[in-house]
Amino acid sequence: MAESASSATSMLKDELDIVIPTIRNLDFLEMWRPFFQPYHLIIVQDGDPSKTIKVPEGFDYELYNRNDINRILGPRANCISFKDSACRCFGYMVSKKKYIFTIDDDCFVASDPSGKPINALGQHIKNLLCPSTPFFFNTLYDPYRDGADFVRGYPFSLREGVPTAVSHGLWLNIPDYDAPTQLVKPLERNTRFVDAVLTIPKGTLFPMCGMNLAFDRDLIGAAMYFGLMGDGQPIGRYDDMWAGWCIKVICDHLGLGVKTGLPYIYHSKASNPFVNLRKEYKGIFWQEDIIPFFQQVVLPKDCTSVQKCYIELAKQVKDKLSKVDPYFDKLADAMVTWIEAWDDLNPAGAPAKLPNGKA
Amino acid sequence: MAESASSATSMLKDELDIVIPTIRNLDFLEMWRPFFQPYHLIIVQDGDPSKTIKVPEGFDYELYNRNDINRILGPRANCISFKDSACRCFGYMVSKKKYIFTIDDDCFVASDPSGKPINALGQHIKNLLCPSTPFFFNTLYDPYRDGADFVRGYPFSLREGVPTAVSHGLWLNIPDYDAPTQLVKPLERNTRFVDAVLTIPKGTLFPMCGMNLAFDRDLIGAAMYFGLMGDGQPIGRYDDMWAGWCIKVICDHLGLGVKTGLPYIYHSKASNPFVNLRKEYKGIFWQEDIIPFFQQVVLPKDCTSVQKCYIELAKQVKDKLSKVDPYFDKLADAMVTWIEAWDDLNPAGAPAKLPNGKA
Repeated sequence: MAESASSATSMLKDELDIVIPTIRNLDFLEMWRPFFQPYHLIIVQDGDPSKTIKVPEGFDYELYNRNDINRILGPRANCISFKDSACRCFGYMVSKKKYIFTIDDDCFVASDPSGKPINALGQHIKNLLCPSTPFFFNTLYDPYRDGADFVRGYPFSLREGVPTAVSHGLWLNIPDYDAPTQLVKPLERNTRFVDAVLTIPKGTLFPMCGMNLAFDRDLIGAAMYFGLMGDGQPIGRYDDMWAGWCIKVICDHLGLGVKTGLPYIYHSKASNPFVNLRKEYKGIFWQEDIIPFFQQVVLPKDCTSVQKCYIELAKQVKDKLSKVDPYFDKLADAMVTWIEAWDDLNPAGAPAKLPNGKA
Repeated sequence: MAESASSATSMLKDELDIVIPTIRNLDFLEMWRPFFQPYHLIIVQDGDPSKTIKVPEGFDYELYNRNDINRILGPRANCISFKDSACRCFGYMVSKKKYIFTIDDDCFVASDPSGKPINALGQHIKNLLCPSTPFFFNTLYDPYRDGADFVRGYPFSLREGVPTAVSHGLWLNIPDYDAPTQLVKPLERNTRFVDAVLTIPKGTLFPMCGMNLAFDRDLIGAAMYFGLMGDGQPIGRYDDMWAGWCIKVICDHLGLGVKTGLPYIYHSKASNPFVNLRKEYKGIFWQEDIIPFFQQVVLPKDCTSVQKCYIELAKQVKDKLSKVDPYFDKLADAMVTWIEAWDDLNPAGAPAKLPNGKA
């Protein structure tokens, strides 16, 4: 299951950007060097723009700080979070590639049970390049994987699957728990390597974590908005969750797939549960209303593009969630601003620009 | 994850029956002896009643052949398949226990990656005794398992889960493929041990295999009907599939859970793909209509018991699937007969009888 670094170099090299929020840890890029060096990096700095991020020699990268975001987006920059890693979604917007892989700077290379380093990016690419099966559950997990297939009773008409839009990877060592669970189980570590990839069925929501995530930008990028978090906002740590709820209902509507499971990364450090509790606590209440909202969302048939779906979703958020808190009114507006900015930077029909300047 | 045979002896010993269709293989019970001997076996012989099944010394069992089924059910015996392992569901009906484990006679004890024999029954019991989470997907799989929990973003109101009605286990070595896949991939073996149990989300159908299956008879037994297969019927090998579709829509309606994943058994021998193709081929066509039917089934609110749900389902099968083939008209009638026979043998309110005669 693990790919060697060398075989990774040939996989979608010119079609994938790696988007990273502020890199605080100098070891991070060194550890990933064998896997990441062939790719272009987009680093989005979440805090003080006067601080400089040192990127080691040999990486091909562009770095955006708050001043860059303000300059590029003008008044629309207010849809991009400040002092929060949610700002990473600006990188999705300015990328010109078909695929995005995003990872946090406290995530290192994990090992598979045989001790071999896991090429997380290589596995994400595999996940994205093979179809998903959202309409019926396959008990042997991903039927397209070597050594697996569709089991008896799986309808033949569904075996072509649908395009995969999102690949959600997992974490060994520190699991992605909320603050209350962190507080209750400070010593819990995830040591179980589950050797599976599976499609999250149509109609089912999931908690999407942005730590180790890849997606097809052409298929779903415009909905991968990480919301308003951090400075000046009443919540944090719901950026990826918000994006996950939105992309899932849109993928379900458009007939696209979302996979979860492999690859694992090694999540090195638990964030501070007290800080997290402060960021999360409104979200803990709100999600009890937000999730039923997303479970009942119906997108009309004429929403045939991600942008149309997302604008419609923003409208329904304003209608239905503003009564939960005025924050959702602001968020719904920011969702519309995000789409305007996305369309501005990604004019319809413009082909993905390859690094050599050819379309 | 594997349980020792000795620790298994204390788990639900007086509350679980093992139901086995005809045992053709004398090694079968010997291999399972350390795990099965503490339990009561119900063997349902599918073929010629004049043939005798030799059960090795030391097992506590009852054996039913066709003459017994005819005698006990009278004219209603026509709902039980003849010359097909689908007859096993008669064993579910005559059991007086809360839990059932059913297994095929070509399924042996598998080993986990460390080489330790897997106590399949012990894992099924664990699965059945801890809740399911059908309303929202947990990316770290079963949140109740040691070392796992609900991840960030999982609504707290859903963390109690719902009672688990069904535990669907998997197969190492020979995967459960249909005849076309068997023909195309005669050498494929399942060697991947996926160390996970997960809830199949609400609203998602799955192909339920009867080879290695456990369920809570009180919660869902009356819907675990394996249909009309084998002698005199136009199809075979859809007995467990039919039951799977029925139990899933009923569990979804009643707020019960269905789990799949661990435990694995070792499936020793592929059945003949040519014979299978003859049994399956109508089903391969029919499932293209059956599955959309089950995907759209709505059970009315007043269906508050499994029996009421099942009778309503029979009505809808008659209405909607009889046009696919007259077989479904007959099957819908048999579903009603099954419930009549079930209720006859399991009077409402009768507590499960314990082997010592005490209620």
